[in-house]
Amino acid sequence: MNDHLVALKKLLKKENLDAVLISSLPNIIHVTNFSYFTDIEREAYLLVTQKNHYIFTDSRYSHAVKTKLQNFELCEISMSQPFTKLLESIMQRENITYMGLEEDNITVAEHKRIAKVAKKSKHFDLKTLRIIKHSEEIKKIKKACEIGDKTFSYISKQIKPGVTEKEIAFLLETFIRKQGAGLSFDTIVAFGANAAVPHHKTGNQKLIINNFVLLDFGVKYENYCSDMTRTIFFGKANKEQKKVYETVLTAQKLAIERFNHLAITSKTAKASELDKVARSYIISQGFPSIPHSLGHGIGLQVHEKPSLSPNSKNTLEDGMVFSIEPGIYLPDKLGVRIEDLFAIQNGKLIQLTKSPRNLIEL
Amino acid sequence: MNDHLVALKKLLKKENLDAVLISSLPNIIHVTNFSYFTDIEREAYLLVTQKNHYIFTDSRYSHAVKTKLQNFELCEISMSQPFTKLLESIMQRENITYMGLEEDNITVAEHKRIAKVAKKSKHFDLKTLRIIKHSEEIKKIKKACEIGDKTFSYISKQIKPGVTEKEIAFLLETFIRKQGAGLSFDTIVAFGANAAVPHHKTGNQKLIINNFVLLDFGVKYENYCSDMTRTIFFGKANKEQKKVYETVLTAQKLAIERFNHLAITSKTAKASELDKVARSYIISQGFPSIPHSLGHGIGLQVHEKPSLSPNSKNTLEDGMVFSIEPGIYLPDKLGVRIEDLFAIQNGKLIQLTKSPRNLIEL
Repeated sequence: MNDHLVALKKLLKKENLDAVLISSLPNIIHVTNFSYFTDIEREAYLLVTQKNHYIFTDSRYSHAVKTKLQNFELCEISMSQPFTKLLESIMQRENITYMGLEEDNITVAEHKRIAKVAKKSKHFDLKTLRIIKHSEEIKKIKKACEIGDKTFSYISKQIKPGVTEKEIAFLLETFIRKQGAGLSFDTIVAFGANAAVPHHKTGNQKLIINNFVLLDFGVKYENYCSDMTRTIFFGKANKEQKKVYETVLTAQKLAIERFNHLAITSKTAKASELDKVARSYIISQGFPSIPHSLGHGIGLQVHEKPSLSPNSKNTLEDGMVFSIEPGIYLPDKLGVRIEDLFAIQNGKLIQLTKSPRNLIEL
Repeated sequence: MNDHLVALKKLLKKENLDAVLISSLPNIIHVTNFSYFTDIEREAYLLVTQKNHYIFTDSRYSHAVKTKLQNFELCEISMSQPFTKLLESIMQRENITYMGLEEDNITVAEHKRIAKVAKKSKHFDLKTLRIIKHSEEIKKIKKACEIGDKTFSYISKQIKPGVTEKEIAFLLETFIRKQGAGLSFDTIVAFGANAAVPHHKTGNQKLIINNFVLLDFGVKYENYCSDMTRTIFFGKANKEQKKVYETVLTAQKLAIERFNHLAITSKTAKASELDKVARSYIISQGFPSIPHSLGHGIGLQVHEKPSLSPNSKNTLEDGMVFSIEPGIYLPDKLGVRIEDLFAIQNGKLIQLTKSPRNLIEL
């Protein structure tokens, strides 16, 4: 039995539940390490009790489940054996009354069907299980970051006048795939004023000299995500452009220093404090506040706990992996964001993305 | 105002609702044609009344919404103005009591928050709005299918002994992206016995002579999906392999003929009848029943209504676009599936994917 399943059962006991029904794809992967299902539609559920483990899926996946997931009993969903019917019979067999559900994943329509057979259910927060990563998980994220760094080094050399955002995104994504990896999300490539939109949709804009080039991309390696942003200057940056860049970079450095300071002085660092120091610095330099959080956790999903935002309740602890990504966005003018991933190991902040952060002028 | 918004308001009236809250990404795209949001997390909601249209999103998307979506009033979600607070004030301003929700998309956790301000809500099925495609939508799917056919022609030439499934998938996906298109789903490439798993996970299997090569892939063009499967024989097929292939092909042809026959004789064709004729034929030839539906609707999502399955209640009507994809899967031995997309226009079945369907031996 893997460690994640052990941790899940501990939580189950603590919550006084007979079983938990797991429906979200990342949590299914977290508990089983089985990653055959797609997110096109609901394709599987897990049911975990203290003693037994069940997987509900249809015949498209039966063969893979039988060969790769032997510690889960297969309950095959079919037209004559719909999911709720199968669930009901397992609940009777296992004498399950109190069941945990992922209420942040199960839809209202699904819940109406499930509630007919599972009358006493409550929310079960599996996300807390994923907030602390094991060293094996951090290794995978690290590897994803390494591929990201390699990709950044490659793509920097492809930036030429007249190239379009889409062309750069294509080359970047193809390079990642050539390394045998996947993407965490659709790559954002934004030239000039387009970078003022934090989630710009990569388009057909051509590169003109004396503009910023923002690259925000993520690699998926063995189901684990990386995420990084670099903003290069194509041409020679003027004084204002340099000031924007340096302010963002300093904001990131201040957040890192804040963590290090808190780790030494109080052995605990609130996520919101890192956000605060970076955000306040940017405002103090006369720029608009960051229109997003300073950072987010990452793992099987590109956005996970902890949240590094002004109202975050998370404290930053050993085993957490997250981004620190301040940005300045001046509408119709420019945008600069610098994003790196960090893990906390033995109370120390370890930087996982290692591409140069100083202003690159091409 | 676009046609989809007009149709939505008609449905709203019919359902006696004051407003509908739209949350699913495909339905947001359907109603607005605005496709900036990602499915990483919940990034936006629409609220549509008979008179007004609102969009709730955060500052990452404000600029894009303001410039591209002018017939929707932007309600910017922020830490001080959470979604439910904004929703409540619009509901008061618009005097909204009865609200439709996508219960098959809204999670239980979201519903608990929304129900605090929208006490009288009920399920609103927007999927029915998407089941009949306009000619503009069919054109986009057709274009996606054309790129798919071009891709199949290209990839057929890349099949060589020793190549791996992943290598073929990489070449295939890169070719699609080079055409400026995206993917509807992760490509399935399955060699030999791997094809016996209907949803095989493309892996490192190398191609050996005298095996089937199953290719199941989809193109996304301007948000609309295609989907096709071809199974090529690499080598010289023996009698049994030929029989399997011909049985699948005949099953597909019988389903098409069944539609044509029903369209002429009774002017209405039940989706389940197409499934039945293909399924029965495969069984009559001594093979196992198809472990999935005969087909599925397609559009903004790769799986939509109608469903071509034994217990489907859909009738096939003008403007519907769907796959017909019988398959035979012999565990640990082989798998063959042939999948094409069809649209119904003027009562006729129009084949959108046009790659050759006869057995190709390479």
